[in-house]
Amino acid sequence: MSNYIANLNWRYATKKFDPNKKVSPKDLDNLLEALSLSASSYGLQPYRIFVVEDREIREKLKPIAWGQSQITDSSHLIVLANQATFGNELVDDYIDNVSTTRGIPFKDLEGYAEFMKSKLVSLSESAKATWTASQTYIALGNLLSAAADLKIDSCPMEGFDNTEFNKILGLNEKGLNAAVLVAIGYRSEADRTQHNKKVRKSKTDLITHI
Amino acid sequence: MSNYIANLNWRYATKKFDPNKKVSPKDLDNLLEALSLSASSYGLQPYRIFVVEDREIREKLKPIAWGQSQITDSSHLIVLANQATFGNELVDDYIDNVSTTRGIPFKDLEGYAEFMKSKLVSLSESAKATWTASQTYIALGNLLSAAADLKIDSCPMEGFDNTEFNKILGLNEKGLNAAVLVAIGYRSEADRTQHNKKVRKSKTDLITHI
Repeated sequence: MSNYIANLNWRYATKKFDPNKKVSPKDLDNLLEALSLSASSYGLQPYRIFVVEDREIREKLKPIAWGQSQITDSSHLIVLANQATFGNELVDDYIDNVSTTRGIPFKDLEGYAEFMKSKLVSLSESAKATWTASQTYIALGNLLSAAADLKIDSCPMEGFDNTEFNKILGLNEKGLNAAVLVAIGYRSEADRTQHNKKVRKSKTDLITHI
Repeated sequence: MSNYIANLNWRYATKKFDPNKKVSPKDLDNLLEALSLSASSYGLQPYRIFVVEDREIREKLKPIAWGQSQITDSSHLIVLANQATFGNELVDDYIDNVSTTRGIPFKDLEGYAEFMKSKLVSLSESAKATWTASQTYIALGNLLSAAADLKIDSCPMEGFDNTEFNKILGLNEKGLNAAVLVAIGYRSEADRTQHNKKVRKSKTDLITHI
């Protein structure tokens, strides 16, 4: 555990990446493996992950993300895109996967499928979008910790025009919405914010024992 | 990293906790330390954490959480409560903390404070609530990974009546809202779901490289 906490103390929202340092294919693979193991409500993972390395596309994304240099200077830009809406297929695809993975006949899972559908598919459109977006934030929390474990720097970013992001990445036609971004790579020595003391609420302010 | 991934493969949403096994004060302390180091937008941590051990209160919470046994059988129930709304004080308290922690005069941070306020305080009430709730999900993602690192079992739970939770925990008067729960403790040998193969989307279904 001491490592886990040390890794979290090591990480910070990297403001300036070294544009010449790339995350290795092996490390990227491990990071994405960890990301794919993120928990989600009912295990449904109602989102898709886009790993953007293409330089031209990142140049297009930069101005619609407050011009932040992390978009282009990082090694990879990871876009977590939630399903903007969904119907029965979200549950059916999952149940298919459960059936295959665990070798359980589909019909033995139908009761559970109906239960999930009754809870989820009847939600309002805006509740669906909020709920799927919140699932991407669980993945985000896990991703940031996994990156720190690999000593990969990261910068989570909410400051971008998601309507324009959706257009450029072609997310609308896939029923997706860019929820949050994470730039990954390695901090530049010139990033002075790496030397800032970490600011967190005191335990007393943050945590109450009952 | 192999440990990080192995830990995520070890974890599962624990359905049945051993009611006789408690998380030690030292492990709990480490877990809460990791939790308090979670990233958040601008570092604002717009939430509070309640660690509920009290038996009587948990018995009251159980029926308003679908009667799930994890509420009472776990070692501790962690409630992540987002700030239902906020004003300038959210930013001012943070800037105060930055000023103290980093030894920077408050007035040198005023420009940054105004920038944050312009982005956040003008949001609609519902956008504020959604945004602060999403920050609790980053903490949730980190918390689940930290627990796995400590070989503490966990079960994240969205299935509860948050209006009633807010009443019983007295959250309304603090401007808070129960966003999501995590029961922590140790799996019961009788929990057969621990033997289920983990179901996740294939990399191809989940991840697109651009």
